[in-house]
Amino acid sequence: MSAPLNIAVAGLGTVGSGVVRLLADNAESLQRRCGRSLRLVAVSARDRNRDRGADLAGARWFDDPVAMARSKGVDVVVELIGGANGVARAVVEAAIESGRGVVTANKALLAHHGYELAVAAERKGVQLAFEAAVAGGIPIIKALREGLAGNRISRVYGILNGTCNYILTEMRRSGRDFADVLAEAQAKGYAETDPSFDVDGVDAAHKLAVLAAVAFGARVNFKSVHVEGIRHISALDIAFADELGFRIKLLGLARRTPAGIEQRVHPCLVRLGTPIAHVEDVFNAVVAEGDFVGQAVFQGRGAGQGPTASAVASDLIDIARGSRVPTFSVPAAALDAAKPMPITRHVGAYYIRLMVTDRPGVIADVTAAFRDASISLESMLQRSRDPKEAVPVVLVTHETRESSMRRALAKIAALDTVQEPPRVIRIEEP
Amino acid sequence: MSAPLNIAVAGLGTVGSGVVRLLADNAESLQRRCGRSLRLVAVSARDRNRDRGADLAGARWFDDPVAMARSKGVDVVVELIGGANGVARAVVEAAIESGRGVVTANKALLAHHGYELAVAAERKGVQLAFEAAVAGGIPIIKALREGLAGNRISRVYGILNGTCNYILTEMRRSGRDFADVLAEAQAKGYAETDPSFDVDGVDAAHKLAVLAAVAFGARVNFKSVHVEGIRHISALDIAFADELGFRIKLLGLARRTPAGIEQRVHPCLVRLGTPIAHVEDVFNAVVAEGDFVGQAVFQGRGAGQGPTASAVASDLIDIARGSRVPTFSVPAAALDAAKPMPITRHVGAYYIRLMVTDRPGVIADVTAAFRDASISLESMLQRSRDPKEAVPVVLVTHETRESSMRRALAKIAALDTVQEPPRVIRIEEP
Repeated sequence: MSAPLNIAVAGLGTVGSGVVRLLADNAESLQRRCGRSLRLVAVSARDRNRDRGADLAGARWFDDPVAMARSKGVDVVVELIGGANGVARAVVEAAIESGRGVVTANKALLAHHGYELAVAAERKGVQLAFEAAVAGGIPIIKALREGLAGNRISRVYGILNGTCNYILTEMRRSGRDFADVLAEAQAKGYAETDPSFDVDGVDAAHKLAVLAAVAFGARVNFKSVHVEGIRHISALDIAFADELGFRIKLLGLARRTPAGIEQRVHPCLVRLGTPIAHVEDVFNAVVAEGDFVGQAVFQGRGAGQGPTASAVASDLIDIARGSRVPTFSVPAAALDAAKPMPITRHVGAYYIRLMVTDRPGVIADVTAAFRDASISLESMLQRSRDPKEAVPVVLVTHETRESSMRRALAKIAALDTVQEPPRVIRIEEP
Repeated sequence: MSAPLNIAVAGLGTVGSGVVRLLADNAESLQRRCGRSLRLVAVSARDRNRDRGADLAGARWFDDPVAMARSKGVDVVVELIGGANGVARAVVEAAIESGRGVVTANKALLAHHGYELAVAAERKGVQLAFEAAVAGGIPIIKALREGLAGNRISRVYGILNGTCNYILTEMRRSGRDFADVLAEAQAKGYAETDPSFDVDGVDAAHKLAVLAAVAFGARVNFKSVHVEGIRHISALDIAFADELGFRIKLLGLARRTPAGIEQRVHPCLVRLGTPIAHVEDVFNAVVAEGDFVGQAVFQGRGAGQGPTASAVASDLIDIARGSRVPTFSVPAAALDAAKPMPITRHVGAYYIRLMVTDRPGVIADVTAAFRDASISLESMLQRSRDPKEAVPVVLVTHETRESSMRRALAKIAALDTVQEPPRVIRIEEP
């Protein structure tokens, strides 16, 4: 039996308390699995007196988490403070500098500084682990970095934000609009008071940038992620998608293309019958495609105390067992500084909804604009007729290039008969 | 850059050729990920002259795979011969004795001798890895042994045999019966000429025994798996299941219960809308349930050249990176010799189809038998009426104990009006 792994936890919110609880509840099984005990030796949080439903008696209290990260007798620092900079970053940097391993759930930090932190950690010979940063309890980082590491991954995508998936699921089930469902989600605690981080796609983009780095062995490149959120998705679009045989999901998607690495977060139409279309509520799912494995799908809870604690524990177990795997699947020095592919070069099918004046010639004008941009149409729907009000017209295109689509849409938006900006949702094929 | 990892492959069938191809095709990326090259140095197979679509020029040929396993300059032996005993076992034992790591796809070998081999490997300080033995390309062994290792796993189950899933899927789609679809699957190469290993559930049971060992940190106990195959599943049952809102799947299922570890392979009714119900054709899926993570679902191709090669490669990468994880997730000496739970203690709901003479009083006799065994019924269906022929009656029970069910069925089978042995399929709740 080796010496215990001495663990310090910075941040005792929902996740931090869950980690403390897991280390206590499953201490015996962890010891059996690691051949040594995983011992909580220090904790730090803002408020010492809050009851967290977790026993902190054996752990030393630190008001300053950076001092804790540097203190003697700590082997690994678990950073659960959050945020791309500030205290969280200082804690992680201090831990690495002091030769401690780091386990973090902080996707913002990794999205912004992942490459530099990986370089620093590898230089110091310590592990920087972050299973909990992407898709909560789903062990997708390990799957990409190890389980599927024999493959050349061509595409990885998934439902990476549970709040958005809950809102979209609820909108479809109830037929209500975004604002209404968001308010309810906030009341239930499924969405933050300031929901922009989730609903504008930023959180999913952080996770996607990390996922892409691991999948492709590339430097994290958050700045190049094309991001759109779900605020503009209407009940009408969800109903039309349903009629056409699709679900609307906020996907994060990264693809290796000859033109560079494509990274985008936006609402997508996904076909019913594909695994991703049936992932509902707060669940997350990730699909990875490799040259040998084909398609592999991973589903589970993307957030919450238990699943996130499970992911943190798996990193701690790896460290306790002495596993040493490169941070982003290849050594930092060998990470690809791959060029990003701009969204204008994206090729795919599109769903477009227009609100038009219901009079003869409208469809002819619209379809002419597509023809002029060499875009061919797969289907067209006009369900309601009303000469006094704007009526929806839905078009689905065959594969085309984003730049062509934008050209066509500019023309269409300028038509007298088109009364609102066109709503465009990309279609993602399985 | 460290020294190359020298690999010997025993068995060059579909999978072996795939491994050789993967090592060649993805050599550069493997080297980047491992910090050393993965080098094929030796191969052995029955027929030296067969064209395998893989370049063997750089590898030394051995007619005797056991001699190869013992030969100098080999770091890891990949055993892809198959079979619980005979040459495969001799190769693995020779490799371990000689201090070489072993990677194998051989579930039969592990199901029968996994514990003893783990003891031997750990004594010698070598890795015995077997990601490819269960669910092909899905990295489920790694997920249980590492990714979810912080959890106490309560249940693990899945679709572990692609041939059976293909047959059941095709039976449902076409409405045809088992024998008919099996013949077609054989013609297409999806089923073996002697299909009993697959359709009688033996293959799934091998995999389940391995899966359970890893999930629960217990000794492999294949002998205790309760096994039923899919030969008795009829088109009629599939249609009734559909009407009741279920799919029929061959599941392998292991559960930790106060009465011991339950392991069973048999056809199940699973509710539409659960992830497992929608896994079709040759795909596999595994669901793991842990105290912190909740439910995690893994899907992918369960067999075939590419997916199996992907799994073998992930084990080779782990070994090349120097990862050392206990064979069945805890050191062999600490593996639980957990007592098995007999199937008669199983508790669950049941689907029962009877073929009865259509005359008054039949249902009263049948329901009386259930009442006498304290089994309550959830629903009853009798769709067709025909005084001259036997007609089907379908009953769905609430949760009950297997032993009570057997008691009731013995009475029912003895009724004059019941013309065939009752068909019983267990219902598995998500």
